[in-house]
Amino acid sequence: MTIDRRKLRWNGWGLAHATFDMGHHETQVWDYIAKALGREQLARTPAVPLPDIQLPPSRLDETTLAALQGIVGATHVKTDRYERAFHSRGKSYLDLICLRAGDLGEHVPDAVVYPADADEVQSVLDLAVSRDLAVVPFGGGSSVVGGVTAQRGRRTGVVTVDMTRLHRLLHIDEVSHAATLEAGVYGPELERQLQARGYTLGHYPQSFEFSTLGGWIAARGAGQQSNRYGKAEKWLLGARLATPRGAWHTEQFPASAAGPNLNQLVLGSEGTLGIITEATVRVHPVPAARDYRGYLFRSFTDGVAAVREIVQRQIPVAMLRLSDAHETHFLQSFSAAQHPPGRATRLGAKVVAWRGYGEGRCLLLIGLEGEHETVQESLAQTRSVCTRHGGMSIGASPGRKWYARRFNMPYLRDPLLDRGVAVETLETATRWSNLEALHHDIDATIRQTLAANAADERASAIVMCHVSHAYEDGASLYFTMVFPQKLGDGPAASAAAAREQWLAVKHAATEAMVTGGGTVTHHHGVGTDHAPWLGREKGPIGVSMLAAIKDDLDPAGAMNPGKVLEMG
Amino acid sequence: MTIDRRKLRWNGWGLAHATFDMGHHETQVWDYIAKALGREQLARTPAVPLPDIQLPPSRLDETTLAALQGIVGATHVKTDRYERAFHSRGKSYLDLICLRAGDLGEHVPDAVVYPADADEVQSVLDLAVSRDLAVVPFGGGSSVVGGVTAQRGRRTGVVTVDMTRLHRLLHIDEVSHAATLEAGVYGPELERQLQARGYTLGHYPQSFEFSTLGGWIAARGAGQQSNRYGKAEKWLLGARLATPRGAWHTEQFPASAAGPNLNQLVLGSEGTLGIITEATVRVHPVPAARDYRGYLFRSFTDGVAAVREIVQRQIPVAMLRLSDAHETHFLQSFSAAQHPPGRATRLGAKVVAWRGYGEGRCLLLIGLEGEHETVQESLAQTRSVCTRHGGMSIGASPGRKWYARRFNMPYLRDPLLDRGVAVETLETATRWSNLEALHHDIDATIRQTLAANAADERASAIVMCHVSHAYEDGASLYFTMVFPQKLGDGPAASAAAAREQWLAVKHAATEAMVTGGGTVTHHHGVGTDHAPWLGREKGPIGVSMLAAIKDDLDPAGAMNPGKVLEMG
Repeated sequence: MTIDRRKLRWNGWGLAHATFDMGHHETQVWDYIAKALGREQLARTPAVPLPDIQLPPSRLDETTLAALQGIVGATHVKTDRYERAFHSRGKSYLDLICLRAGDLGEHVPDAVVYPADADEVQSVLDLAVSRDLAVVPFGGGSSVVGGVTAQRGRRTGVVTVDMTRLHRLLHIDEVSHAATLEAGVYGPELERQLQARGYTLGHYPQSFEFSTLGGWIAARGAGQQSNRYGKAEKWLLGARLATPRGAWHTEQFPASAAGPNLNQLVLGSEGTLGIITEATVRVHPVPAARDYRGYLFRSFTDGVAAVREIVQRQIPVAMLRLSDAHETHFLQSFSAAQHPPGRATRLGAKVVAWRGYGEGRCLLLIGLEGEHETVQESLAQTRSVCTRHGGMSIGASPGRKWYARRFNMPYLRDPLLDRGVAVETLETATRWSNLEALHHDIDATIRQTLAANAADERASAIVMCHVSHAYEDGASLYFTMVFPQKLGDGPAASAAAAREQWLAVKHAATEAMVTGGGTVTHHHGVGTDHAPWLGREKGPIGVSMLAAIKDDLDPAGAMNPGKVLEMG
Repeated sequence: MTIDRRKLRWNGWGLAHATFDMGHHETQVWDYIAKALGREQLARTPAVPLPDIQLPPSRLDETTLAALQGIVGATHVKTDRYERAFHSRGKSYLDLICLRAGDLGEHVPDAVVYPADADEVQSVLDLAVSRDLAVVPFGGGSSVVGGVTAQRGRRTGVVTVDMTRLHRLLHIDEVSHAATLEAGVYGPELERQLQARGYTLGHYPQSFEFSTLGGWIAARGAGQQSNRYGKAEKWLLGARLATPRGAWHTEQFPASAAGPNLNQLVLGSEGTLGIITEATVRVHPVPAARDYRGYLFRSFTDGVAAVREIVQRQIPVAMLRLSDAHETHFLQSFSAAQHPPGRATRLGAKVVAWRGYGEGRCLLLIGLEGEHETVQESLAQTRSVCTRHGGMSIGASPGRKWYARRFNMPYLRDPLLDRGVAVETLETATRWSNLEALHHDIDATIRQTLAANAADERASAIVMCHVSHAYEDGASLYFTMVFPQKLGDGPAASAAAAREQWLAVKHAATEAMVTGGGTVTHHHGVGTDHAPWLGREKGPIGVSMLAAIKDDLDPAGAMNPGKVLEMG
């Protein structure tokens, strides 16, 4: 079973009937947010409803539509308003600005097709190539970097290939801990099928419920427990793709010295070389034990030192998530607004502050998964490392809470956008020796550019960051910003103002990353949004190599135009 | 300090003054080998000495030589007999057949240059490209797959670039556990420099003493302790290359989603895209504790099950080395010939056999490295796994012995070749679910083709195998063959006969690998020898992509012609 497309928000997050749980004190929460953003009252900025939106007519002629229907069946070719709008863009803040304003522009697929299997995908692709159409592969559509925008590039039209009918577990090799699945499978369905056999992929990005296996691979995704289960590049064992040159499957050996590893070209290709139809992935037995808990540190420096020691000593952990002082403060304040603390809690906070965990305190969540014994040993070892760096255990409750709500945050964005409040994230990774300097630079740049582009002079912003993925040589930094949108007169002017405001921040922050020794993205991918910076990271020779590969596989430029490389 | 080239065997292994230690009973050892190979007496097949060998004249004109001298200095351009012969080929069995017969053919560099740094490498490369010369990068020259053969392809001459003057540790980032070194550094010098700072790369291939960092990366090498330290693709963080299009450095982030990872194209490129001049690698603190010990299993199946459980449960180990029954038998017999066992040892062996560790018994060596506590825990855990699979601990002595002699085996090949005895190795990797079937198929194929191509009807062969690198999804198989060479009348005819004999076996065994679900190479690389099979592994689309990259970076075909891809 896959998700009924009709039940999803076309211009927001997740299931249309679901929403962020504000707790029992919704008014207080909104008051808290308004105050934090320097607002007396939040705005009213509802999205333009779909029926009010003008869509460009489909560019496909009857013959092409009939040919597509001939491949996938008439019911699996969609040209209706909902399907075309739903598949026009992903879920970045920029996407939502456009979608909510009803300004879909030219970037609307001329048709959406739902193939049933790899052969149908290949046939659709062949047809599109022969008819001068661009092809945009679409899994969950949760890209936050413009990875699924329906651009036609130098082609005459665009067909979006929705992969979600390809959702089967095809084979599991229990001896080799390897499973082969169709690439359009959503996270929950993937885990359900694997766990029924006693295995897990363990890949749980925040988008887990609404993203697919193929997308995770195409964009080099990372799950929240990547310390144990790895980023996509660690768990992908082999892939099958439909390409403009025909079906292709990559090598699937545990290791090989037979030339460059081509799986590593599929990873990060974002649909520009072909469509991933199947993938063989490394699986693990479902963990027998799980322990998520929190520690407080007196400073970000102390917390970073603890995280670094844990990974460099290779203590087995599933997750290390260190919030900086701003994020720690926000999480505690937001929680307090949702669930006002009693006297004992307030007193406890004072004692904690008195012990040195004051303004600069940082929350570290440590997640452990695996065999009972290993989890117990890791618990003792991580506690000892934390203590040595001045960390204070605050028990399992923060871990439990985080775990229970780990996919909920994206639901908060839509009600914020209904009130003129922007939320967006940026992420990077760098060496340990550079981590705090880069954290400082990006944080300062975001604050400065947000201030310079503020909605008005009283507007203030919430800017916060966490280290979410740690390696022996370095770690990622994940920034979240919440701020009042610049608004104009009516939806179109407001969208233009908000877009300009964000682009200024995005540009400055990305420049700070790149010049400061960080990658432009740790796990969000390149899409359209980061393409202008790719050359800075790969160098002219690197970009030339990637372009040569693209040109070899897709000389007509049919595959997902404008993504990764700024090519038509 | 690097190794004085003049002290090395040009047509054999290692230091000219060093040799394999036969123990106190050399005659008995030779008798044992003769008997095992069905010989009454071993042949006498000495190598043709260098002064008796005809070398083709250098094709370089005076202007070009002067230009090369202008870049690296007159003393660092070599055209003498020793240097040209030393750099004509690597160290495969096929190479040694040619070298020992004095049949260097056309594959001799027209000059050997020793640049001092990355800039000189780039200048040499630029000059070569402009003068229609091919360039062969040369580190230790220990390739066993034809990776450094001085082929000029469609160019008019060939310059070999010996990288061993580039041997410095340039930078160590102790916070990030990352070190940057010049790529021409030999193993011992690399470890000496790192260990002086308290760190290790931990990459110890059997060729360690006579191979270089750049070669390990270019050929996707694996050290014997790869479970802990990883294959080159795991420890390479970033590289700098000289290419026909200029200097290029790859990204060096702990992880990134910014498109495909280009380090993975450098790994396995084998000098066909450019010359690796520097590399940044992941280092570890020098391990505080080390434990190497042996276990006996009643069967290969039992041993494989234990190895698989250890890696799939992620018990921290540095090395798992499981010999099949043939190798176990050989190791024990060879050792007994070197050091005849006393009565107690013989009695002990009988008891062991009586307990079920008989003909089919297999030796597993487990190496542990790391913090004292971790090593102790792993020791307990691995012992428990082994016991559960019927393994019997045979103590630390086999581990200690193996460790002490781990780089010695290649020295045995030259005295064997002096006696008409061939030694060669083949390796692959596959899934756990396929491992025993593939082991059986390759073993049978080798035995059959060796028999069909035997020196004479009484000749027999030693064929043995070990699992040396284990992963969660599968493992490598490493086969060693010792057999009487087919000989002819005089060195040239003998070389031709031996070559034909080996090619028949190599071809059949590689076909068995490829059709049986194994990679053509786990860590030896492709070179010239495996290039004909690359297309079978990568598929036509994969090969086309690799060719597109090659053509983009090296349109003139100057870089290491004929390696990896069968391109000029």
